[in-house]
Amino acid sequence: MSHNSYGHLFRVTTWGESHGPALGCVVDGMPPGIPVTEDEIQVWLDRRKPGQSRFTTQRREPDQVRILSGVFEGVTTGTPVSLMIENTDQRSKDYGEIKDRYRPGHADYVYDVKYGLRDYRGGGRSSARETAARVAAGALARKVLGDGIVIRGALVQVGPHAIDRSRFDWTECARNPFWCPDAETAKLWEDYLDSVRKDGDSVGAVIEVVASGVPAGWGAPIYGKLDADLAAAMMSINAVKAVEIGEGFAAAALRGSENADEMRMGADGRPQFLSNHAGGILGGISTGQDIVLRFAVKPTSSILQPKRSIDRHGQEVEVVTRGRHDPCVGIRAVPVGEAMMAAVLADHFLRHRAQTGRR
Amino acid sequence: MSHNSYGHLFRVTTWGESHGPALGCVVDGMPPGIPVTEDEIQVWLDRRKPGQSRFTTQRREPDQVRILSGVFEGVTTGTPVSLMIENTDQRSKDYGEIKDRYRPGHADYVYDVKYGLRDYRGGGRSSARETAARVAAGALARKVLGDGIVIRGALVQVGPHAIDRSRFDWTECARNPFWCPDAETAKLWEDYLDSVRKDGDSVGAVIEVVASGVPAGWGAPIYGKLDADLAAAMMSINAVKAVEIGEGFAAAALRGSENADEMRMGADGRPQFLSNHAGGILGGISTGQDIVLRFAVKPTSSILQPKRSIDRHGQEVEVVTRGRHDPCVGIRAVPVGEAMMAAVLADHFLRHRAQTGRR
Amino acid sequence: MSHNSYGHLFRVTTWGESHGPALGCVVDGMPPGIPVTEDEIQVWLDRRKPGQSRFTTQRREPDQVRILSGVFEGVTTGTPVSLMIENTDQRSKDYGEIKDRYRPGHADYVYDVKYGLRDYRGGGRSSARETAARVAAGALARKVLGDGIVIRGALVQVGPHAIDRSRFDWTECARNPFWCPDAETAKLWEDYLDSVRKDGDSVGAVIEVVASGVPAGWGAPIYGKLDADLAAAMMSINAVKAVEIGEGFAAAALRGSENADEMRMGADGRPQFLSNHAGGILGGISTGQDIVLRFAVKPTSSILQPKRSIDRHGQEVEVVTRGRHDPCVGIRAVPVGEAMMAAVLADHFLRHRAQTGRR
Amino acid sequence: MSHNSYGHLFRVTTWGESHGPALGCVVDGMPPGIPVTEDEIQVWLDRRKPGQSRFTTQRREPDQVRILSGVFEGVTTGTPVSLMIENTDQRSKDYGEIKDRYRPGHADYVYDVKYGLRDYRGGGRSSARETAARVAAGALARKVLGDGIVIRGALVQVGPHAIDRSRFDWTECARNPFWCPDAETAKLWEDYLDSVRKDGDSVGAVIEVVASGVPAGWGAPIYGKLDADLAAAMMSINAVKAVEIGEGFAAAALRGSENADEMRMGADGRPQFLSNHAGGILGGISTGQDIVLRFAVKPTSSILQPKRSIDRHGQEVEVVTRGRHDPCVGIRAVPVGEAMMAAVLADHFLRHRAQTGRR
Repeated sequence: MSHNSYGHLFRVTTWGESHGPALGCVVDGMPPGIPVTEDEIQVWLDRRKPGQSRFTTQRREPDQVRILSGVFEGVTTGTPVSLMIENTDQRSKDYGEIKDRYRPGHADYVYDVKYGLRDYRGGGRSSARETAARVAAGALARKVLGDGIVIRGALVQVGPHAIDRSRFDWTECARNPFWCPDAETAKLWEDYLDSVRKDGDSVGAVIEVVASGVPAGWGAPIYGKLDADLAAAMMSINAVKAVEIGEGFAAAALRGSENADEMRMGADGRPQFLSNHAGGILGGISTGQDIVLRFAVKPTSSILQPKRSIDRHGQEVEVVTRGRHDPCVGIRAVPVGEAMMAAVLADHFLRHRAQTGRR
Repeated sequence: MSHNSYGHLFRVTTWGESHGPALGCVVDGMPPGIPVTEDEIQVWLDRRKPGQSRFTTQRREPDQVRILSGVFEGVTTGTPVSLMIENTDQRSKDYGEIKDRYRPGHADYVYDVKYGLRDYRGGGRSSARETAARVAAGALARKVLGDGIVIRGALVQVGPHAIDRSRFDWTECARNPFWCPDAETAKLWEDYLDSVRKDGDSVGAVIEVVASGVPAGWGAPIYGKLDADLAAAMMSINAVKAVEIGEGFAAAALRGSENADEMRMGADGRPQFLSNHAGGILGGISTGQDIVLRFAVKPTSSILQPKRSIDRHGQEVEVVTRGRHDPCVGIRAVPVGEAMMAAVLADHFLRHRAQTGRR
Repeated sequence: MSHNSYGHLFRVTTWGESHGPALGCVVDGMPPGIPVTEDEIQVWLDRRKPGQSRFTTQRREPDQVRILSGVFEGVTTGTPVSLMIENTDQRSKDYGEIKDRYRPGHADYVYDVKYGLRDYRGGGRSSARETAARVAAGALARKVLGDGIVIRGALVQVGPHAIDRSRFDWTECARNPFWCPDAETAKLWEDYLDSVRKDGDSVGAVIEVVASGVPAGWGAPIYGKLDADLAAAMMSINAVKAVEIGEGFAAAALRGSENADEMRMGADGRPQFLSNHAGGILGGISTGQDIVLRFAVKPTSSILQPKRSIDRHGQEVEVVTRGRHDPCVGIRAVPVGEAMMAAVLADHFLRHRAQTGRR
Repeated sequence: MSHNSYGHLFRVTTWGESHGPALGCVVDGMPPGIPVTEDEIQVWLDRRKPGQSRFTTQRREPDQVRILSGVFEGVTTGTPVSLMIENTDQRSKDYGEIKDRYRPGHADYVYDVKYGLRDYRGGGRSSARETAARVAAGALARKVLGDGIVIRGALVQVGPHAIDRSRFDWTECARNPFWCPDAETAKLWEDYLDSVRKDGDSVGAVIEVVASGVPAGWGAPIYGKLDADLAAAMMSINAVKAVEIGEGFAAAALRGSENADEMRMGADGRPQFLSNHAGGILGGISTGQDIVLRFAVKPTSSILQPKRSIDRHGQEVEVVTRGRHDPCVGIRAVPVGEAMMAAVLADHFLRHRAQTGRR
């Protein structure tokens, strides 16, 4: 058991606080013989890196990753891969003001109740900086999965504004600062988020992550369900409040006759589904179709508008959270969601191989 | 690691198939000295039991639980509690017809791909009968939590018909066959489900589970988040496709200024939240408010309407699923959701006590 | 985490007390498609069964195993295999006398301190009857390993009397009631144990377990070492106080030049070791040679000679343990040690396959 | 599951190779509010540090530990503590010669078979340098246990030369380079080891570790046995081939009447054992007496005497292991054994507290 580990056979343990000297992760269970370089991991970290547009926090972190173990002469050795990212742009003095105050929507109060103390600098362990370690681990997970499995994420809703699905185009995601697959909606969000930011406010979002190329048969019934692990993985990301697979909540309103994914033999002589209401998972096991999930991120809790709260001493106070925050933390959650999908799939690939001897 | 266990310190391992001789669970980690009888567990099983109204499967199972170990002279000994429920009303011959056919929406196809074979009788391990073991374990979890923590579930949506929240009344739940907290909507569902049933069809649902009396401080940051474990727990229930905590998906559309749960000192001199958008969990840790979650159940996949599929030999077929099925499996998911909430909380209670020495 | 589970991918959870209605285990992680019958498991249970000679307890238990799940049409389905053995010959009244007394050498006192209560009937959970579940699980583990791996155990020392290694013959083990590989020593033990029994006393023993046919490469460095898991497995058996691999304690007295297992290419063109001081494991990983371990079992604590102790109320008492006990519990530990070896190897086979994709 | 983690609630994950840039560990589950400094950890690392006498390797490593997370303002926060030690004195070129050769007694061959490759520099992950991370983690474990529990180790046998138990004096351990509790034997070892070293040879050893002050009640029956976890912990240390608790192997030769630890009420009105054959553990649970274990370390495999072996290409070769090696690796195993004892006890303290709410 561990409060800070994820996965069983592809096992990630993360450590580090927002304003400590560094953060990182240890990835245990890596198959041997996989080529991997720091640059290949860096590619994914750069996507999550703060300060890349005016819509994310202006904290300047290079997020440069170092491989400290587990890779020898350019390939994994089968021993634990330790990855470290140094923190360079901590301005801890920003936090003196809220040292004793509980910021609404943050974990400040519950930390104090649970542990009797807290690292108040930037949320300490609860900071979204921890997700850098997830993205680094996710880069290794992609290596384990191989090129045949493609994992992509997109922002599909910001505040009340959802994309138009008829314009969904993965290639658009790299062309705007939101990972938005719909060019027109991206423009709308730009104006909308500017107004939110001017209000000293923030807003929530919905992220969609899709994995293509996953073979049928990964996952397990009951408590080893692929979707249960995905739900936990996504819900473990900061600020996430909801997860759904395939039709998700909409499935409640469907009839069985509508929701059934019928099957036929494909032109290639292989089984084929005629629809994907299931989101690629039935009974906890992958069907071979795209695995499709969405998760909702609540609005950033750090806002400039004053909110009522209390402090450690039971005094009633007003809290304004200055510092450098994301007006929509959902944007940077896209690469994090992808990384978690990759980690869960890598784990289930190895679990499936263990039990059945097959990929 | 285990595909069939749940929890860490309150650890539940379930076993059994729909049409095997019995099913059950082993609950490891029970604190010693807790009074428990078979009757106390039976109370909860009776709530989940099939055949209690025309809206659930007509399979007749007494679901009589036996305690095989871990309880001596009426109290737990701290050793594993083994619970067994015998299957008595298996009509396996009902399933001969679908032996080689993949029922759409079921796990038949993926089982065959994963394992190379499957127990086709009633879905085998994937049958919702497995949830009887969950409910039995949940009864023990409630014992661990004590009377101060109350866990209640309700059906809040059937097909497109949601309850009217202004009429929400927990006491109504026991007065209709749906666990519906809104008497008027319950009547509407009765007619609606009759029509669904007559169509040989089925429909999805949304369940809400609320835990009151949970102290602040349970859970942990990062991968030991209370909400992540709850999400996995609910998603591991048969047919569940979505989970949300507090505002859930609605949080995406909120502004930070709306979503913040402000705090003040209560009349009792203790910290008080002025709202509960968070659903009782911040940063993965309980706030002391009600823990509120909802999950969506897809429509029962076993329907009388013919659907296109294939069989094990690659032949295209039409599948009609006879047998005795729930037109809305969401109804019986209510006590299951409660049980899973109880199991997760019992586990986190013990985890919190381990690390901090406090309740 | 679990106090009552063993292994990771071949995961065994046992339950049950000496005088409860039944005991059993759940084996999770079984690969699918393996033929297995109750009779095949029974073979191994019969070897451990009490009452087969005057040198083991006279309790009469048929130890009849039932498969309750996980096997369909004669083969494993990949879902958990639940095995149950009913207790039939409990004479709980034998234990009324020691209900409040702490038997020296038993866990009575520590149970009471730990849990605040104990099931005093036959040692409750601490009874050696629990090992029946291990043997049943071991039978499944052998199935996972296949016929190429042969696991054999022998009793090599009883009290001060060790076998003569020059007479070691595996086929002798089945010809005497001790699993003794040396016919002459077996005769000596017969007289010796008769005298021990007449004294109302008991005696310890050393068991050797050897696994042949294990390929090189199973196990892992550091905390996943094959020998570490074997050590834990053997030490978890009732009354075991010591474990050693290969040269074991004797290695302390050797020089590096003596202890090195040199290598040459064999006549078959494959690497060959010229000796096996290592006992088949280097750096936690199997070498392909025989895996050889020994463990020591202390003398049965239940003896007819009176011993000083105290009771629950702090009164000083004398304890004589009547009941039906093994004068040398080490005898019946032989099949248990074999079973634990099989379970550990099955687990490491699957772990190795998970990480490397190879057997 | 993890190949590189140890413990459940006090959970240690180590990483790093002998000749990588650094090594370290992540300790998860630390209770909050415990004061800890780098200096307090360094004390223990300095005891294990190489190069402190002519009887250990001459590699010069300061083994300076850094705390990277989990400690804020001098106390633990309850989040993972990441500890890192940089490698500074790697002379990797020493290893070019054995790059393709399998050193007898080392894990070289099995690594290659298992992983298809290996980090040949200094044994890579299998190097005893990994034990620095164990010692660092052990320092934190001692902090969790508090001052009431004292853990001490001693070297009690080197080659064939055991100490004289009548001269056992813990205070002597700090006065010689061997942690020898018997001053006269220490002198003998000095000469003996000089001669071993001159022969270009090495020798094995036996270490004893004792924990005083452990309350009765820690541990659990069956697979959570304190002694099983201790056995695994010690066996996981490099070169360890045997572990015993209390009488250990000697218990095999004892009669039940001799081995029983009788009880009486002590002068302080508390239960008292009259002997400690059990080594402080009965039925897997601590008795309140000293926990006493011994483990055997094989002779260092790296020796200057030439040994027959093969290389990766199947060529027969002679191997001489130059480099800087410990003539008796058992010496430095003393602080490592202590650290592992501390880690196991810290874990079981938390496990006990979780289940029972008491220390």
